[in-house]
Amino acid sequence: MNLPPLSAASSDATAVANAHDAGEKEVKLWGGRFKETMTPAVEKFSESVSFDKKLYKDDLAGSRAHASMLSKQGLISEHDLEVILQGIDEIERQIEAGNFMWRADREDVHMNIEAALIDLVGESAKKLHTARSRNDQVVTDVRLWCRRSIDQIINNIIELQVTLVNLAANNKGLVVPGYTHLQRAQPLLLQHLLLAYVEQLERDAGRLNDCRARLNYSPLGSCALAGTGLPIDRFATAKALGFIAPLRNSVDAVSDRDFLIELLSANSIIAVHLSRIAEEWVLWASEEFGFLTPNDAVSSGSSIMPQKKNPDPMELVRGKSARVIGDLTTILVLCKGLPQAYNRDLQEDKEPLFDSVETVLASLKVTGEFAKNITFNKERIASSLPAGHLDATTMADYLVYKGVPFRTSHDIVGKAVALAISRKTELSKLSLQELQSICSVVDDDVYSFLGTANAINRFQSYGSTGEAQVASQMQYWSEKLNIH
Amino acid sequence: MNLPPLSAASSDATAVANAHDAGEKEVKLWGGRFKETMTPAVEKFSESVSFDKKLYKDDLAGSRAHASMLSKQGLISEHDLEVILQGIDEIERQIEAGNFMWRADREDVHMNIEAALIDLVGESAKKLHTARSRNDQVVTDVRLWCRRSIDQIINNIIELQVTLVNLAANNKGLVVPGYTHLQRAQPLLLQHLLLAYVEQLERDAGRLNDCRARLNYSPLGSCALAGTGLPIDRFATAKALGFIAPLRNSVDAVSDRDFLIELLSANSIIAVHLSRIAEEWVLWASEEFGFLTPNDAVSSGSSIMPQKKNPDPMELVRGKSARVIGDLTTILVLCKGLPQAYNRDLQEDKEPLFDSVETVLASLKVTGEFAKNITFNKERIASSLPAGHLDATTMADYLVYKGVPFRTSHDIVGKAVALAISRKTELSKLSLQELQSICSVVDDDVYSFLGTANAINRFQSYGSTGEAQVASQMQYWSEKLNIH
Amino acid sequence: MNLPPLSAASSDATAVANAHDAGEKEVKLWGGRFKETMTPAVEKFSESVSFDKKLYKDDLAGSRAHASMLSKQGLISEHDLEVILQGIDEIERQIEAGNFMWRADREDVHMNIEAALIDLVGESAKKLHTARSRNDQVVTDVRLWCRRSIDQIINNIIELQVTLVNLAANNKGLVVPGYTHLQRAQPLLLQHLLLAYVEQLERDAGRLNDCRARLNYSPLGSCALAGTGLPIDRFATAKALGFIAPLRNSVDAVSDRDFLIELLSANSIIAVHLSRIAEEWVLWASEEFGFLTPNDAVSSGSSIMPQKKNPDPMELVRGKSARVIGDLTTILVLCKGLPQAYNRDLQEDKEPLFDSVETVLASLKVTGEFAKNITFNKERIASSLPAGHLDATTMADYLVYKGVPFRTSHDIVGKAVALAISRKTELSKLSLQELQSICSVVDDDVYSFLGTANAINRFQSYGSTGEAQVASQMQYWSEKLNIH
Amino acid sequence: MNLPPLSAASSDATAVANAHDAGEKEVKLWGGRFKETMTPAVEKFSESVSFDKKLYKDDLAGSRAHASMLSKQGLISEHDLEVILQGIDEIERQIEAGNFMWRADREDVHMNIEAALIDLVGESAKKLHTARSRNDQVVTDVRLWCRRSIDQIINNIIELQVTLVNLAANNKGLVVPGYTHLQRAQPLLLQHLLLAYVEQLERDAGRLNDCRARLNYSPLGSCALAGTGLPIDRFATAKALGFIAPLRNSVDAVSDRDFLIELLSANSIIAVHLSRIAEEWVLWASEEFGFLTPNDAVSSGSSIMPQKKNPDPMELVRGKSARVIGDLTTILVLCKGLPQAYNRDLQEDKEPLFDSVETVLASLKVTGEFAKNITFNKERIASSLPAGHLDATTMADYLVYKGVPFRTSHDIVGKAVALAISRKTELSKLSLQELQSICSVVDDDVYSFLGTANAINRFQSYGSTGEAQVASQMQYWSEKLNIH
Repeated sequence: MNLPPLSAASSDATAVANAHDAGEKEVKLWGGRFKETMTPAVEKFSESVSFDKKLYKDDLAGSRAHASMLSKQGLISEHDLEVILQGIDEIERQIEAGNFMWRADREDVHMNIEAALIDLVGESAKKLHTARSRNDQVVTDVRLWCRRSIDQIINNIIELQVTLVNLAANNKGLVVPGYTHLQRAQPLLLQHLLLAYVEQLERDAGRLNDCRARLNYSPLGSCALAGTGLPIDRFATAKALGFIAPLRNSVDAVSDRDFLIELLSANSIIAVHLSRIAEEWVLWASEEFGFLTPNDAVSSGSSIMPQKKNPDPMELVRGKSARVIGDLTTILVLCKGLPQAYNRDLQEDKEPLFDSVETVLASLKVTGEFAKNITFNKERIASSLPAGHLDATTMADYLVYKGVPFRTSHDIVGKAVALAISRKTELSKLSLQELQSICSVVDDDVYSFLGTANAINRFQSYGSTGEAQVASQMQYWSEKLNIH
Repeated sequence: MNLPPLSAASSDATAVANAHDAGEKEVKLWGGRFKETMTPAVEKFSESVSFDKKLYKDDLAGSRAHASMLSKQGLISEHDLEVILQGIDEIERQIEAGNFMWRADREDVHMNIEAALIDLVGESAKKLHTARSRNDQVVTDVRLWCRRSIDQIINNIIELQVTLVNLAANNKGLVVPGYTHLQRAQPLLLQHLLLAYVEQLERDAGRLNDCRARLNYSPLGSCALAGTGLPIDRFATAKALGFIAPLRNSVDAVSDRDFLIELLSANSIIAVHLSRIAEEWVLWASEEFGFLTPNDAVSSGSSIMPQKKNPDPMELVRGKSARVIGDLTTILVLCKGLPQAYNRDLQEDKEPLFDSVETVLASLKVTGEFAKNITFNKERIASSLPAGHLDATTMADYLVYKGVPFRTSHDIVGKAVALAISRKTELSKLSLQELQSICSVVDDDVYSFLGTANAINRFQSYGSTGEAQVASQMQYWSEKLNIH
Repeated sequence: MNLPPLSAASSDATAVANAHDAGEKEVKLWGGRFKETMTPAVEKFSESVSFDKKLYKDDLAGSRAHASMLSKQGLISEHDLEVILQGIDEIERQIEAGNFMWRADREDVHMNIEAALIDLVGESAKKLHTARSRNDQVVTDVRLWCRRSIDQIINNIIELQVTLVNLAANNKGLVVPGYTHLQRAQPLLLQHLLLAYVEQLERDAGRLNDCRARLNYSPLGSCALAGTGLPIDRFATAKALGFIAPLRNSVDAVSDRDFLIELLSANSIIAVHLSRIAEEWVLWASEEFGFLTPNDAVSSGSSIMPQKKNPDPMELVRGKSARVIGDLTTILVLCKGLPQAYNRDLQEDKEPLFDSVETVLASLKVTGEFAKNITFNKERIASSLPAGHLDATTMADYLVYKGVPFRTSHDIVGKAVALAISRKTELSKLSLQELQSICSVVDDDVYSFLGTANAINRFQSYGSTGEAQVASQMQYWSEKLNIH
Repeated sequence: MNLPPLSAASSDATAVANAHDAGEKEVKLWGGRFKETMTPAVEKFSESVSFDKKLYKDDLAGSRAHASMLSKQGLISEHDLEVILQGIDEIERQIEAGNFMWRADREDVHMNIEAALIDLVGESAKKLHTARSRNDQVVTDVRLWCRRSIDQIINNIIELQVTLVNLAANNKGLVVPGYTHLQRAQPLLLQHLLLAYVEQLERDAGRLNDCRARLNYSPLGSCALAGTGLPIDRFATAKALGFIAPLRNSVDAVSDRDFLIELLSANSIIAVHLSRIAEEWVLWASEEFGFLTPNDAVSSGSSIMPQKKNPDPMELVRGKSARVIGDLTTILVLCKGLPQAYNRDLQEDKEPLFDSVETVLASLKVTGEFAKNITFNKERIASSLPAGHLDATTMADYLVYKGVPFRTSHDIVGKAVALAISRKTELSKLSLQELQSICSVVDDDVYSFLGTANAINRFQSYGSTGEAQVASQMQYWSEKLNIH
């Protein structure tokens, strides 16, 4: 998949000009009854164009659809339409070339574009805002932006899944300790652990897909809050913009930002998932675990300690989950307790949205790059496996086979572990006599259950870490992700 | 719809007994290799039975399904099964009669029930935990509890929607001011505003349904984290418990709580929606708005000011949104940065879950009760309508009909409003001459657009507040909600 | 007070150059043992100079103090010191003139400045990092930045307090309704209400002062985490930078960010306070309250509704409280569960810090500008005072004077209010006979307690809204704030 | 120090009775003008006595002070006072004996106690609420409760500090690896690391002390919001309750909860600090680190894996930091955007307060118990020290002594480390020739800087991990904490 960047404007160097740079200060487009101009501090506080210009692509798309509909409905002439569309194309070119002059005194992306259009093509452009308000315009833009963002996040999720499955494929047969409470618990095939991440990412994509389907309705034509008396066709603009249908209620359409909270929630869950992978890999890269080594390309050093090689990208992935959660908090606090319909507070919805999306996109990307740049230290891992009695549960299963109730067998194995610890040895190194001294039903065949290699081979339940089970899951994901 | 209460245990008075009440302190079920008992402060800090006993119904259901499967797979005898099932039934009776002795020294709901079962039926019960760990057991219980909770929340959502549509039906034709920035903007049919709430609640239900579908997979049989070597049938237990299928990866199954974050996110959005309704109704109940009066049954008074009649339930609905958001924060912070698989931190997932669900259930209920107990003050509302120039946009539409570009017409109407304000009158009271002095294209027919009644009649776009549009939406919802 | 801007760099247009713009890619300063260079995505993800360049002033100050100490301790020569200080001055000039080339491949503000210094003055500069690590350097910079920020925020708080006291002084004698539950409760002097805000802001300043005192200790010389074996003088650098003393423990010094959480907490409380003022003023500016009118200079209009005049700045102040709370959440989540000492996650502490401080500074400023640009509508307020029985509690006090137990008098007045409501009149308009029919002890002197004017005159307790009390508080604040 | 428990009521088994249990439903104390009773769902939603009964001690204290003042001011008779005080004593006895009947239909702790007092002593009790409102009463209670809580938390902090210093004293001379990025960085004396925790806790106590001083002002006598016309003496009640003075502004007094947000912020920072200790100890208890072993008394086992011994208490301390942060979020969201003065939303301030305080108290306690029950594995730690090149920075310092600029020496040591890694050896095992091949200034004396033991001995800067420095810090804390 090859998607366009979210917004060319976000990376270009075009600063937003202050009023005085832009020459004579102009009257605001809504300024009919206003006699004074805003104080500079208030104007700076109120402007949003410095960040909402990221919506320019969506704003232009919305205006094209709206103008075409107005013309078809006879609300503007075909000539007006033609002139408007040409003007929009020219503005898009200017923006993407970095030549468009964004002006803070024109407040936001919408007013900047509309005013520039009027400057460019004159009277016809004054008709573009017919049967439209900034209230429905901005939420249309934001929905379009979210839709594009979701597609990109899902794309990055899939890329990361592919990377993880490839990493698993390249480490077939590698057994690692599995942990609960960060204590060694049972052996795991590394593939099994990596596929756990893949499963979590799959649900993340599912949440985004649901969110996308729910937000893909058009607010355009809801105008300020009540709709309009002009004969517009909301189904036509909805269709032109790829929405499923127009939203049914104009007040709801301009008031609610639930779709945005839902997206930021889904992003927060992704960020939490990534923070957990990050924690695990940071642990594994430590001297003490020593299970993996990152390449230089994804490490950094210390300004004072020359020997250091730090897994910084994953620390940052873990750390950046905080801001994604903070962004969600912001949008929830923002919306709490606002009466219907649009309130200016809602202008503040955009920065947490942009930040959350960009952070999640980059975190997915970097996690994938890190995954491509790590080596698992097979000898080190193998030599560590005997520690921690990873086969204890398998021995308990053995006793169940022998007819011992599980609670009793759990108790027996507990005593065997205590004995092994006191002898500083492993379960598989205890003699049959020693084992029988704890439980008389134990027989010679117990040794085919002891030791990590035997233990891992015993797993057979669906979804377990047993070899056949994991192989079948590897196949499932390879097919699903189209990996050959 | 008539659903059972979430948990009988939650409302009964059965306290959790401390160890010393329970007579001789017993060895923990996991205590095989342990030589010392926990310190009292640590035991109190660690126990969860005081709150997780709410899961008892789900825990018993899980044990029934698990035991039946074990028997079918030959892992326990039919006799064992019979004895276990009878024991479970007896324990359920005890719990629901309030006779079950919950013991803090038995830590959690699972150990309390398993240990009581052993006390009750002896050896057979020691086999129940075969091929099961608390790690998969607890997350099975929690998923079942969430599923039941979602069904109840959706039920309460539908009830509230029905109440709102009925309230709308009873106030047909009532026109109220619509607001943006809390400034009067355009007239609305009250029905239209109430249906905006209904729309928002509908998406809330949609989110819950998606969450339900995504969490409805069985972790049972994932055991500690790696699955088991015993020949269990996870598809059988999944089916018995109404799950779609078993989860595919045992590590994922016991590690992740994303389903729970998703539920708490969906709840947070509901809470935000309700807080907005609450804010609106608190405003409307003020002396200054005076649009609605709550009955005594949903108001309260002041301990010092005898004249007060406060809309407390809606203030509390607004206030309680804070805890629902706080609960979401808790679960996100909790899960951030935890390595796989189960960590004891996850025990802390339950209280925010319970609190969030119970708060949302009650808030939906009380909002509905409030809605049933308010009267809209029609005269007061009607007499206030002339204020605020609610017809200004309609006049701008009129000018568009007359061929004036919208931007220009917006400017003209701005001047007309300024004139009306300076004369302390309304637009519809300005003379034709006065209007023409501002814009020459204005004709006598302008008066059929001015005044709130005319204004509201002019709306015609899909989803607008126009009478026909709203009537059609009322019909849509009445049918969908099965209201006659 | 006239403080310098937080950072010239924050407002200039100097973009951060990518590596390729900067010509040949250089080896990182920490790169001794590294053989590969970072992948571009990781480098972009890792760099912080795009935002931490705001710390340049503090970084330069720290380097000046550090270099001077090194020289005094004989660790570098006087010549080295001279050359380094000249280089630092030159770099400062370049930065403030917008000529300094910030390079993303040099990661952060510290490495950018150090590397540029080496480019500029050569070998001597390579000695600057002696006995210093980025770990102690960055936290020194951040503490200095916080200290400056706190001074500015306190300054803005005082300015707002002065504005509010002046606003109060200009509205002497104006009585407004006081609310609880947004229901009319008792009359208030507007001055009293405005001074409530002033009190809240005073505690806000107190919190910042406490935070400032607690953070004003020097981490410099803690190096990576363990201190150094070189004979540095941490007391000297602490003194030179205006710190009270060096921090006592080097691990603590580089690990903890509690000072920053404390600052963001204090900011969150300020933001909540401002959101409450904002809510009140948005309400008061509504058609329904009509208590205040903002000037055009602090209002904005609608792109579609020509009659609108919205109190946007206060809606934004209310809305922006959300991001300040979100920033606090971010920093708390960030620090949770990190082991000692420095972890790269901590790089993420800066953006929420900067955002929180800048938002609070601007919100205080804009609230003050709004306060200077509002007019209270005295006639409208006065005419509304009879509604809502604001004198009911005063009547209850009257009955207490007459010997009626308070609970009984509360009950009696409740009945009187009910009577007045049923008659659609006010308490003061009920006849003596009517009042006596409810309570026989009522006498003719009751009328000197009824009516809003009488009611407000009766208040006498310390801190109450009585005229004398409020006058004394006005004097207290005028003196404290040095207002003449 | 030996402080009383926060509230006897919190642990007793006295349930809150529903209205029907309490016999005939009574009229609310504020019910003068009310004709209908609350619906059961609303009553349940509104009641707070089930949790605010924890305030009973503070409520009784406030009533005693208030009644005494009323009597002294001649507002009630001495007889009334005597009767009221006796009644209050009796109620206190009943509550603490578990015999007091808390009734949900009496809403909250205040109304329960006042109504019970009237039941108990009759008419006199009806005078108690003279010149008082629930609005000032509740916030007086909450401030008193917070003050007591702060004292207890500080007490627990000091106990934990003592425990940590004792633990340090018992492990004199133990060297452990110090980490940044969880990578081995430099050696640390364990004492130094433990004292870092002590420093952090000291600032935590400082924050609480500041918070205590700021909240220790009396709201009592502010009544509903405006004060009162009765001649009360607020200075007298303030003094009687141990407050510094009465609050200066009655509206502020009943409206603001900033003191509570401040307390919950301070608690959040404590919780974050503890979560970091917890993370560290969980890591150290892992098989891979193996630095510490918890005793059985603070560990728990697995229901399925007999060999497990988990550091659960610290996992829970880490996990519970999440709810403390969640509680802070709740109170911030709650207060955002509320107009003055009291709003019913504020009833929701208590549960997060109680939860935060109780969680922090218990977490401090349990961290101390854990600290008392761990053993550091000295041999294991010692044998691990050669790994990770902990002496690299010391070698860089050596080169600085030899006149090499730090940046160059950093580079040189980086190469030496790379050489050691390629040879799978330590720096101190490289031959002089090898070292000189990298840097010619290296001489034989370099070996007195290499090796962990030499490295740790070299540290000398103030606050560093050098032996003398740490000894001096140990003495400082022993004296400050009065440890002999």
